Amino acid sequence: MLARFRQAVNTVLGNMQNLPQQLQNRLNGGAAKQQQTPTASDDSSVDYVEIEKVDKFQYTRPEFLQLSFEEVEVTADHHVRPILVPRDVSKLPWNTGYAEVINGGKTRCNEDQAIACHFKLKAKLMEQINTTSPEGVEATCTEIEPIDISCSYFGVFDGHAGSGAALTARHLLHLHIQQHLWDIQELLQPQIPEDLNYLSRSDSKRRQKWPLNERDIPIDSLIIGALESSFHEMDEQILAEKRSYHISGGCTALVALFILGKLYVANAGDSRAVICRNKEVIPMSSDHTPLSERRRLQTIAKLHPSLLGDEFSRLEYQKRIGRKDIGRKRLYRDAHMTGWAYKTIDEEDLKFPLVYGDGKKARVLATIGVSRGLGDHNLKVHGTDIMLKPFLSSMPEVNIYDLGDYDHTENDVLIMASDGLWDVLTIEDAGRIVSKSLESFSRNDHNRYTSAAQDLVMASRGILRENGWRTKSNALASGDDITAMVIPLYRHSMLSPQNSLTESHDAV
Amino acid sequence: MLARFRQAVNTVLGNMQNLPQQLQNRLNGGAAKQQQTPTASDDSSVDYVEIEKVDKFQYTRPEFLQLSFEEVEVTADHHVRPILVPRDVSKLPWNTGYAEVINGGKTRCNEDQAIACHFKLKAKLMEQINTTSPEGVEATCTEIEPIDISCSYFGVFDGHAGSGAALTARHLLHLHIQQHLWDIQELLQPQIPEDLNYLSRSDSKRRQKWPLNERDIPIDSLIIGALESSFHEMDEQILAEKRSYHISGGCTALVALFILGKLYVANAGDSRAVICRNKEVIPMSSDHTPLSERRRLQTIAKLHPSLLGDEFSRLEYQKRIGRKDIGRKRLYRDAHMTGWAYKTIDEEDLKFPLVYGDGKKARVLATIGVSRGLGDHNLKVHGTDIMLKPFLSSMPEVNIYDLGDYDHTENDVLIMASDGLWDVLTIEDAGRIVSKSLESFSRNDHNRYTSAAQDLVMASRGILRENGWRTKSNALASGDDITAMVIPLYRHSMLSPQNSLTESHDAV
Repeated sequence: MLARFRQAVNTVLGNMQNLPQQLQNRLNGGAAKQQQTPTASDDSSVDYVEIEKVDKFQYTRPEFLQLSFEEVEVTADHHVRPILVPRDVSKLPWNTGYAEVINGGKTRCNEDQAIACHFKLKAKLMEQINTTSPEGVEATCTEIEPIDISCSYFGVFDGHAGSGAALTARHLLHLHIQQHLWDIQELLQPQIPEDLNYLSRSDSKRRQKWPLNERDIPIDSLIIGALESSFHEMDEQILAEKRSYHISGGCTALVALFILGKLYVANAGDSRAVICRNKEVIPMSSDHTPLSERRRLQTIAKLHPSLLGDEFSRLEYQKRIGRKDIGRKRLYRDAHMTGWAYKTIDEEDLKFPLVYGDGKKARVLATIGVSRGLGDHNLKVHGTDIMLKPFLSSMPEVNIYDLGDYDHTENDVLIMASDGLWDVLTIEDAGRIVSKSLESFSRNDHNRYTSAAQDLVMASRGILRENGWRTKSNALASGDDITAMVIPLYRHSMLSPQNSLTESHDAV
Repeated sequence: MLARFRQAVNTVLGNMQNLPQQLQNRLNGGAAKQQQTPTASDDSSVDYVEIEKVDKFQYTRPEFLQLSFEEVEVTADHHVRPILVPRDVSKLPWNTGYAEVINGGKTRCNEDQAIACHFKLKAKLMEQINTTSPEGVEATCTEIEPIDISCSYFGVFDGHAGSGAALTARHLLHLHIQQHLWDIQELLQPQIPEDLNYLSRSDSKRRQKWPLNERDIPIDSLIIGALESSFHEMDEQILAEKRSYHISGGCTALVALFILGKLYVANAGDSRAVICRNKEVIPMSSDHTPLSERRRLQTIAKLHPSLLGDEFSRLEYQKRIGRKDIGRKRLYRDAHMTGWAYKTIDEEDLKFPLVYGDGKKARVLATIGVSRGLGDHNLKVHGTDIMLKPFLSSMPEVNIYDLGDYDHTENDVLIMASDGLWDVLTIEDAGRIVSKSLESFSRNDHNRYTSAAQDLVMASRGILRENGWRTKSNALASGDDITAMVIPLYRHSMLSPQNSLTESHDAV
């Protein structure tokens, strides 16, 4: 069974021969040791007798919170909703701030998950290459001394319909990212020695023998590609492992990767990242919702009408269509439209729209309020065989921020939070709260970022009054799980690529 | 047969009962009178015996050129490549400038087409409506005096693989646009009288009885919707009419619509529109090419792999893959990626890529260099049954320019031109040529815009030297059909919506 499982993972990950053994083991890892004995031989064509599957990863809160299982149980009190923060802030890179709170009772567990770690791409030993330039000058490349590349990684995963996908993403997504970065690390090396500079010119004939000839693809595109491929493979791995393990639900995924002096924010779903810099807010992600992705969803339905069963209409209407509208003109939009036009309503239009609802209430196929993320492979429209997954995309949108373009102070941060927070706070609200919080602490106080995260969660959870959870101004507060991270921006630039990482948690 | 044809058009156009009879006749028009007798009864389920089909529209040059058939023949000289301009510039709205030249021999005819006209949306008589406001105040709406809405329309259609689609679009696309604008014209009325102002508030209960209750969709979205629907229906009509008529090839479509103080530019393909204002250039369209639309094309192939036959690979590779690459890692992109990542090459990757080639040489399925437009319903990959059309989109991208935001002079213009021009000139080059040309004419000279258009075509066609058609600087000039329009921007703002249009060419 283990071999069969490995085969599935290999299919997903492609050629793993080049992957460091340690990383391979961890990608294959998780609950494998708990896996039950299969009832058939190790032949992938054999149908397995369904046995009760164990969880891929046991439910825990983020590692840096250092909670025992008993503490997890005790703190998951839907009436008190205690705000959890790390006991020891040094467990997060750069003393990053973190706070979380469980929902007001909609699910037993807090389905948000989070991770924060450093890792390092150890320089590969370059093979000695003897190449001949067109002029016949032999260039020996042994002078190239590749360097280690330091990375810092932060992730927020907002689970739904179970905690399995979010847990799996927390445990494994960064390993996929590490693998992809490791694959391209020769292309990420910051410099080619002066005497080999002719090789960097865009002259294909001169460069065709050089292993770095793929340099004319910008480094940004390679790192974006690594993030995109990792999200895709993570999603495929969840699908593959669901054959052997129980991995419930789906999750949004928002990750921040600090590498080579830049910040890459990859987002699939409706969590948000925003830079708060000198009281200015800079959005670093956009939400993927049924409304923002209406055309993508309609295009899929147009290409595969059968995915709607006989239940749904591909079209969006300005208002819900009723029988009384038949024969009348109503405004609608199809996949090929960003604007609106009239159509004469017929029986077909009485079907429920693929995308329906206003604002936060908008749903795909009347089921799910987020249009990108990981997992959800088994999710169906209630009472039907209509699958949600073909409409849901695991593709992240990646935004880049050059940390060298600005001289960051200790009060400049990246805020990452699940939608539980953004349902109540605008990004401007969040910026003000964080700025105010950070200003009240000394620059050297290790708790300043965690306190800011706590203030964010407090403002969105509110306090319990007679009429439920309410904000300071007595507006409805968030009854959802809430996770907030406050990441200082000045720290990455202090790390030269060759610095050793004393705080390293997950070195490859 | 005519009834059957009408049925097809009706299917395309939806409910035509509300369309003025004159417009209906023209949409059904063209070569219908030449149509041959069908060999079966008027039953849409009957298979027709294929008879030689006549052209939907007889080949001519744009109407405003006023060329006889003999003149068309004579001027289509591939060796001389005379630049044609209108004899009488007043045949174009606002004395708009126009010039064209035939290709250097690649096709017998000039496959570009163009149109320029004014039309007016005659105000519908509003029904007398007695509505009751929530406060019980009866509001009689007979005071509303709807006004006529003046529009000016310009189009450039660059045909390929025949001139049928471009001719059809020239003759019919603006009629579709007129119909859609006519449908929504009550919603376009610029003002609601003061005493009915409560109806414009976004209070659905108050507004539910009011015919204008769809006002909370902005006018821009309605006009964009009208343009998008018109392109879509034009393409469907070409498909439907191909059953009865011969309509060869496909075409790009670039149209400019001046309405209610704004300019809407709708583009599908690689023609370009650019505003040249006080020596600044403002792009008003973007090109739809295999490279710019790579992800849309790959997404279709991912959802419908069979569309690639067994011939093509969905993936894009940094370099063409050969057998020697098998087993090696090469950079690639799939539908879910904007960045690049490595994959290990296998046999599948030896197939020809769906999108391949650099710059202007890029092709979809090794066949076509443009990814949006009208027609092409029968286009196949040479020697196979693989159809191009599922990959080609008729959807325009619409850009809006508010004419009221700037005080335009006689030297501020919109340039529209087919790719024959842009293959040689950058938009900055075009801006410089037009500015220089306009400055050399007096403000009142009716020929100033045509002279500017002529200069544009001259600069891109070049002159015939021993080594072929060359630009002034002896670079390779354009061997393609070239069409250029130079449209003054100050004229639309001079027209109040109620002005009568003495120049009207196509009033509904």
